[in-house]
Amino acid sequence: MRVASVFAQPFAAWRVWAPRRVCRRCLSQKTGRSVAQMLQWKPAEKVDGVVVNGYVRSVRAMKTHHFISLTDGSSLAPLQAVVPADHAEGLTVGTAVRLTGAWVASSGKAQSHEMQVEKVDVLGPSDPKTFPIQKKYMTPDYLRTIPHLRPRTTMNSILLRLRSDVIACLTQYFADRSFTQTHPPIITSSDCEGAGEVFTLMPASDAAAAESGDSATTRAAQEHFFRSRKYLTVSTQLHLEALAQSVGNVWTLSPVFRAEKSDTSRHLSEFYMLEAEMTFVDDLGPVMDLAEDMLRHLSISLYNSASVNDLLSRPKQLGQDLAPADDVRRRWEGFMLQNWPRITYTDAMKVLKDAADKFEHKPDWGTGLQSEHEKYLAEVIGGGSRPVFVTNYPRDIKAFYMRESQTQPNGPDAATPGATVDCFDLLVPEFCEIAGGSMREHRLDPLLQAMKRHGLEGPGAEVLNWYVDLRRWGCPPHGGFGVGFDRLLSYLSGVQSIRDIVSFPRWFGRCDC
Amino acid sequence: MRVASVFAQPFAAWRVWAPRRVCRRCLSQKTGRSVAQMLQWKPAEKVDGVVVNGYVRSVRAMKTHHFISLTDGSSLAPLQAVVPADHAEGLTVGTAVRLTGAWVASSGKAQSHEMQVEKVDVLGPSDPKTFPIQKKYMTPDYLRTIPHLRPRTTMNSILLRLRSDVIACLTQYFADRSFTQTHPPIITSSDCEGAGEVFTLMPASDAAAAESGDSATTRAAQEHFFRSRKYLTVSTQLHLEALAQSVGNVWTLSPVFRAEKSDTSRHLSEFYMLEAEMTFVDDLGPVMDLAEDMLRHLSISLYNSASVNDLLSRPKQLGQDLAPADDVRRRWEGFMLQNWPRITYTDAMKVLKDAADKFEHKPDWGTGLQSEHEKYLAEVIGGGSRPVFVTNYPRDIKAFYMRESQTQPNGPDAATPGATVDCFDLLVPEFCEIAGGSMREHRLDPLLQAMKRHGLEGPGAEVLNWYVDLRRWGCPPHGGFGVGFDRLLSYLSGVQSIRDIVSFPRWFGRCDC
Repeated sequence: MRVASVFAQPFAAWRVWAPRRVCRRCLSQKTGRSVAQMLQWKPAEKVDGVVVNGYVRSVRAMKTHHFISLTDGSSLAPLQAVVPADHAEGLTVGTAVRLTGAWVASSGKAQSHEMQVEKVDVLGPSDPKTFPIQKKYMTPDYLRTIPHLRPRTTMNSILLRLRSDVIACLTQYFADRSFTQTHPPIITSSDCEGAGEVFTLMPASDAAAAESGDSATTRAAQEHFFRSRKYLTVSTQLHLEALAQSVGNVWTLSPVFRAEKSDTSRHLSEFYMLEAEMTFVDDLGPVMDLAEDMLRHLSISLYNSASVNDLLSRPKQLGQDLAPADDVRRRWEGFMLQNWPRITYTDAMKVLKDAADKFEHKPDWGTGLQSEHEKYLAEVIGGGSRPVFVTNYPRDIKAFYMRESQTQPNGPDAATPGATVDCFDLLVPEFCEIAGGSMREHRLDPLLQAMKRHGLEGPGAEVLNWYVDLRRWGCPPHGGFGVGFDRLLSYLSGVQSIRDIVSFPRWFGRCDC
Repeated sequence: MRVASVFAQPFAAWRVWAPRRVCRRCLSQKTGRSVAQMLQWKPAEKVDGVVVNGYVRSVRAMKTHHFISLTDGSSLAPLQAVVPADHAEGLTVGTAVRLTGAWVASSGKAQSHEMQVEKVDVLGPSDPKTFPIQKKYMTPDYLRTIPHLRPRTTMNSILLRLRSDVIACLTQYFADRSFTQTHPPIITSSDCEGAGEVFTLMPASDAAAAESGDSATTRAAQEHFFRSRKYLTVSTQLHLEALAQSVGNVWTLSPVFRAEKSDTSRHLSEFYMLEAEMTFVDDLGPVMDLAEDMLRHLSISLYNSASVNDLLSRPKQLGQDLAPADDVRRRWEGFMLQNWPRITYTDAMKVLKDAADKFEHKPDWGTGLQSEHEKYLAEVIGGGSRPVFVTNYPRDIKAFYMRESQTQPNGPDAATPGATVDCFDLLVPEFCEIAGGSMREHRLDPLLQAMKRHGLEGPGAEVLNWYVDLRRWGCPPHGGFGVGFDRLLSYLSGVQSIRDIVSFPRWFGRCDC
């Protein structure tokens, strides 16, 4: 068994990206300081005339004063404000307020400073009796029924900040490495990439006309707008390949769509994919190097950020629907490790067969890996910490565009019972596949043969003519990978259902707001 | 007439973002240096064993040697390679090659160094007789018929790099200012925002079933996937407002869709919008400050970048379909100017009426500004260089969610013949509107009244219930703006038709690849 464990790292971490959430004087003058900025501000002497905006999270009414916890989504910890009882009218849970007063050292233990409020402006009143966000525990199912209000919970504001930090970090990562960020199309002409059921689209007015029931109208409407039926993209890869032939290495963070009629915690009808494509690479090595280095860079850059710190240090009752904080911390630390193991599918199959009695589904060369198999490999090969690349899957269970393996014998012998392709799945502990990639077949004739094998010839397949065309004039070896961006965020946050990492999740039967 | 011309700048340019396209040692070891990197590398002595990948742009065959111009999309200028005649087989225009040889000072004047090739690997052959990309002039119309190959032209590779640089620059801009980048949904439940005709969607398999002509099937299919009809978003604003109530200032760069059956050089069915939303702002001032500062920061950051330099220094024959380079340079420099004028619609109307005989459409208070009016205002108020904010448009020609003007009298008097809203359009010379924004009505009752006025009540309007809900519990004053991202890139590149700034443009009747 070959488990390559030492690889030269192709990219140094030239610059560790760090989110800046510090006081910006000019911005603060216009809009007040954020709660996060206030909590970092520890002047030795009382400062008057300070303005803070936010929402009332809780109120503790005393005889002469009310103690207000104020939040604005910028930090896990709230700001404590002391409001004279005669100023506290309208300060109910959920209210949007502007507080003006003094910032002074606090006598309490909870935070170093507190606000002694002199002026209260109620900017947006809130009736706590009807406010659907309660301080008590709310189930994920309940919160999903109010996606427009759900972002206001503390945990969801942390998840929004985490998403933003990850986007900014990766944008800088790719810019520093001369990868061109691109906007491949969302509406596409192809429905035959094999990535699942697709959506088609038409103008709403035509759909309404078609609903009148006249079948001629229906057909005319469906054929009309783009002259033939078009689809929402399931992956930007094919178009990325065209763009890579222009400017070399490219990447994108783009929404993709699946019309699967499935109702699981792992599937959405709309989600973001990060996809990267490298040109002039001869084999899968540099592609895997990039995926590994990107995720390692991400974890190193953000591990000490405010959003990750809030995520890992949240009180237990706040994150009771998340994976335990210690488990999530191990995921971040796993990404930081060097030398992620790489194992071929064929070798992995041997490992699985040696443990066949552990599985419900018997491992069998030529079939896909089941979730239980992937979990076992992550545990045994990755030691439960390092992500694991499984490479060179059988040709017949992978997409038509993957290049046949160059580095493994393809003939039917004992070690390799059939043809394989230069591809990889990246498995992480507990969570299974988090990324997948491959070399693309860049030679015209082998691509046409592969398409024939996959039934992609004749009527219907002409929508891929442009993709074949890319091979006709100067197509270098190239390959790339895709990461389910929302799945990655789920993994790194410990959110158990992908429906809870996306602000407005869409799945079979559900599209609220 | 009030033309406010001096405004305090709210944001300093803390960090000028600069794209890095320099040599990355580790990356180069894996994949070779880019042409842009090679052209910057000027060693005093000959360096052997250098590897470069790229595409043959042109060949000049001499007796003993062929002179090859090699490009890879990384720079306007090609790399000159000298190949012994007996190594030059297969080096035709468009071919993807890997060249190995020595990097030496050149005797020619065109560039300081050239490559003396010792080894040629043809990685992707190209038949120049059939290659659709010719060295001679190709019309934009022709190039639009081959969008999958069009990126390979020199001008399109520059445009791709410019887009990437703009995205990275703005991502850093917002991250530095603690704006949270978000992913609002693409599939939405509302079709009544008044931003134009929308697309609806359904699983392709259901559409195929419906095409069988049976009207019961049709109706079942259309109602099925999400339980009721859903749409592709025309603007992320409404959802951004919900997210802003969680984490404060937010932004996004998201695809949006229009099903307009119009065939002009200004409209696409799919394009990117940059939208930002600020909370706890009392009036339009900080919103306009942000739009102005963002665009100024962008122009200052990128003005000396490689992509902008290539854009402005391209030879005339390469950019003959673009606005003249000097005009484009003035656009970049116009963005850099301080203190963009701000004028109310009512005052603008007076300016227009004073010049009424210049216009085909007579200016009339209460109607929208025509393109000829906007051009005139950009010229007269902006002096043909500064962008111009026109604010406080009449209520009845703007969207339902805009707040009624706070700073202007709304009563019917001579100066203001009717109610106006707190909104702005940002006009630029030659190009008209490039951004628009407003304060959002954050109070429940005024919003409900505005919706009633716009016919948004009763059956069908319940899809906006969630948006109204945002006002029920703690909604602070807030506002934001949107920039047509592809229009912005057209303006800054001089590309005349928006179909040529987007790699795979989609419009009425056209969706290739």
